[in-house]
Amino acid sequence: MPGNIVESFKKERERLNEIVMKYAGLNIKRFYNLDSGVYVDGALPRKFKELMGLVASLVLRCDDCIKYHIIQCHEQGVTREELEESLAIALIVGGSITIPHLRRAFEVWEELEAVP
Amino acid sequence: MPGNIVESFKKERERLNEIVMKYAGLNIKRFYNLDSGVYVDGALPRKFKELMGLVASLVLRCDDCIKYHIIQCHEQGVTREELEESLAIALIVGGSITIPHLRRAFEVWEELEAVP
Amino acid sequence: MPGNIVESFKKERERLNEIVMKYAGLNIKRFYNLDSGVYVDGALPRKFKELMGLVASLVLRCDDCIKYHIIQCHEQGVTREELEESLAIALIVGGSITIPHLRRAFEVWEELEAVP
Amino acid sequence: MPGNIVESFKKERERLNEIVMKYAGLNIKRFYNLDSGVYVDGALPRKFKELMGLVASLVLRCDDCIKYHIIQCHEQGVTREELEESLAIALIVGGSITIPHLRRAFEVWEELEAVP
Amino acid sequence: MPGNIVESFKKERERLNEIVMKYAGLNIKRFYNLDSGVYVDGALPRKFKELMGLVASLVLRCDDCIKYHIIQCHEQGVTREELEESLAIALIVGGSITIPHLRRAFEVWEELEAVP
Amino acid sequence: MPGNIVESFKKERERLNEIVMKYAGLNIKRFYNLDSGVYVDGALPRKFKELMGLVASLVLRCDDCIKYHIIQCHEQGVTREELEESLAIALIVGGSITIPHLRRAFEVWEELEAVP
Repeated sequence: MPGNIVESFKKERERLNEIVMKYAGLNIKRFYNLDSGVYVDGALPRKFKELMGLVASLVLRCDDCIKYHIIQCHEQGVTREELEESLAIALIVGGSITIPHLRRAFEVWEELEAVP
Repeated sequence: MPGNIVESFKKERERLNEIVMKYAGLNIKRFYNLDSGVYVDGALPRKFKELMGLVASLVLRCDDCIKYHIIQCHEQGVTREELEESLAIALIVGGSITIPHLRRAFEVWEELEAVP
Repeated sequence: MPGNIVESFKKERERLNEIVMKYAGLNIKRFYNLDSGVYVDGALPRKFKELMGLVASLVLRCDDCIKYHIIQCHEQGVTREELEESLAIALIVGGSITIPHLRRAFEVWEELEAVP
Repeated sequence: MPGNIVESFKKERERLNEIVMKYAGLNIKRFYNLDSGVYVDGALPRKFKELMGLVASLVLRCDDCIKYHIIQCHEQGVTREELEESLAIALIVGGSITIPHLRRAFEVWEELEAVP
Repeated sequence: MPGNIVESFKKERERLNEIVMKYAGLNIKRFYNLDSGVYVDGALPRKFKELMGLVASLVLRCDDCIKYHIIQCHEQGVTREELEESLAIALIVGGSITIPHLRRAFEVWEELEAVP
Repeated sequence: MPGNIVESFKKERERLNEIVMKYAGLNIKRFYNLDSGVYVDGALPRKFKELMGLVASLVLRCDDCIKYHIIQCHEQGVTREELEESLAIALIVGGSITIPHLRRAFEVWEELEAVP
C-alpha cells in the first residue's frame, strides 16, 4: 500500500469531482465555491487555514479530507514541526479513536517530504 | 476502481451478513428485523423513506449505508433530480466533511443509471 | 420546563442570529443563504425536505435543529403519522443514543398540536 | 445547579417517556424494548453491561445517557474505582472533547455517593 | 439568558474540575496535564493553537469547549476578523448542524468585547 | 477480501506506527503511553476493559480500532457469547449506522476462531 498515495489520491479526487459536477445543481455548486473560498489569505494566512482544515479533518476522522489538507499544507510551506504540533492538538481533542487516521496522515506527509 | 461497484457491494454485504447471522443472538436478530421494517410503505411512501435513509447515511458519513440506500432509491424509481436535492440537503447539513462520501454517492448513482 | 418551548426557542434564535450577523463576513452570510435555499419546493416538496432535515438533525443529535425542523414540519402540514415514521427511521439509524433527543422532539410536537 | 440532579433527571425522563409513548408506533416501541433488553444478566453480568453503556455514552457525549447509566451502575454496586477506570478509558478513547461530560458524570456520582 | 456567560462558565468549570480531581486516578490526571500542554507556544504560537482548539470544538459541537477556547483566544489577543475567519472554516467543514453552536460562540465573543 | 485479515492488519499497524514515532513529539508519545496504560488489570480485569474498548470503537465506527480490540479480546480469552453480548449493546446504542462495522467485526472474530 505504501508508495504513490498523493498522486493516486489527486487523480481519484478529480475523476469523482467530475461525476459530482455532472449531477450537481446550483446549491451543490455554490457549496463547492464556498468551500474553496474559505481557505484563502485574509486576516489569517492561508497556510494557517489549511492547518485548521487539517485539525478539523482529523478530529472528524475523514481520511480523504486529511490527505487533501496535508497536501495543501505542504504546498504552503508548513514545516514538519508545525504539522506535528497541529496533529498533536487534534489527537488530544479527538482521542485515541483518531490514531488510525493520524498514522495515515504522517504516512502522506512522509511521502510528500520524500519528493525532491 | 470504477466499474462494478453495485454487484461487488451486494455480494460482500451478503457474505458478511451470513457471518453476522452465524454469531447473532436474539437482540441482534431483532434489531435486524426492526431495521428492515422501518423503510416499508406507510403514511410516507417507501421511496421517500429510502431517501431519508440516504440523507441520514450521508450526514453520518457511512459509505456502505450510502451505497445500500442509493441502490434502494434507484429500485424505488427515485429520479436524478430527487436524488440531487436530497444529497444537497445532506451536504448543507453535514458540511464539507461529507464531500468525499458525496463523490462516491454520485459514482454509484452513475453506475446504476448506466445499466440498461 | 414544559410549556412555552416554541416561542422561547424562536425568540432566542432570532436574538442570537442578530449577533451572528453583526460579526459574519461574506462566507458565513453565503452559507446562511445556502442553508435557507435547500428546503424550498423543487423535485421534492418542501414538506418532505423539512422531514429530511428533521431526520438528519436527530441522527446528528442537535436539539435546536430538531426544534427548528419540527416547527417547519408543523407549518408545512406534516401529519402525526408522517412525523412518527420519520422519527422512527432516525431512531433505528442513530440508535438509543438519540432517545433523549427523540423525547424532546415529541415534546415540541405535542406543544405544537396543542395550539388551537 | 448542584443538588438534586438524580431525582429531577428521573422525573423529567419519566414525564418525557410518557409523551414518547403517546406518539410511538410499533417500531419505536420495539426499539424501546430492545434497548431495555440488552443490559440484563447474561454471559456478562448486568453490572459490566451498565459500565459498557456508560463508556459508550461518554465517547458519544450524551449527558442524559451518561446520567442514566451512572445511576444504574450505582444501583448495581459498581465501586468508585471501577467507575473511575471505565471513565478513564472513555476519556482516552474520546479525547478532551469529552471532558465537559466527564465533569458532569463525576458530579452525578458524587451526589449518588452522598445519599445515605 | 444573556449577560454573565463568561464568569458563570469559569466558576462552574472550576467547581466541576474539583470534583473530577477528587475521583481522578493517574490516567485521568495525566490526560489533564497533556491537554493543557498542547496549547503552549512552540513552532506555532499559542494564539493560533487556541484558534485550532476552537475550530475543533465547533466542528465537534461542544459548547463548553467552544466557550473555553473563545475565552483563551480573547486573552491571547485574537482579533474579531481572525475569529470570524476561523469560525467560517469550522462552519463550512461542519455544516449547518454547527449553526446553533456558532450562534452561542459569537454571543460569548460579544460579551468578551463588551468588557472594558 | 476474506482470509488473512489479522496478520495484514498487525503488519500495517506496525509499519505505520513506526512512521508516527519518526515524527512524534513529546505530546504524541505521551498520549501513546497513556493509551496503552488504560487497558491493564486494575479494579476491572483487562479482559473487560478490552471489551469496553471494543464497544467504544463500534459506536464511534472505527474499523481499525475494532480490529485491534477484537484481537486483544481474543487473546484475553473472551468467549463468543461475551463478544456477542458486547456487540449487541454497541449496536443498540449506535444504531443501524454501525452495522457495516458490526459485519467486519464478526468477520475478524471468525478468522480468529478458525486459527488452531
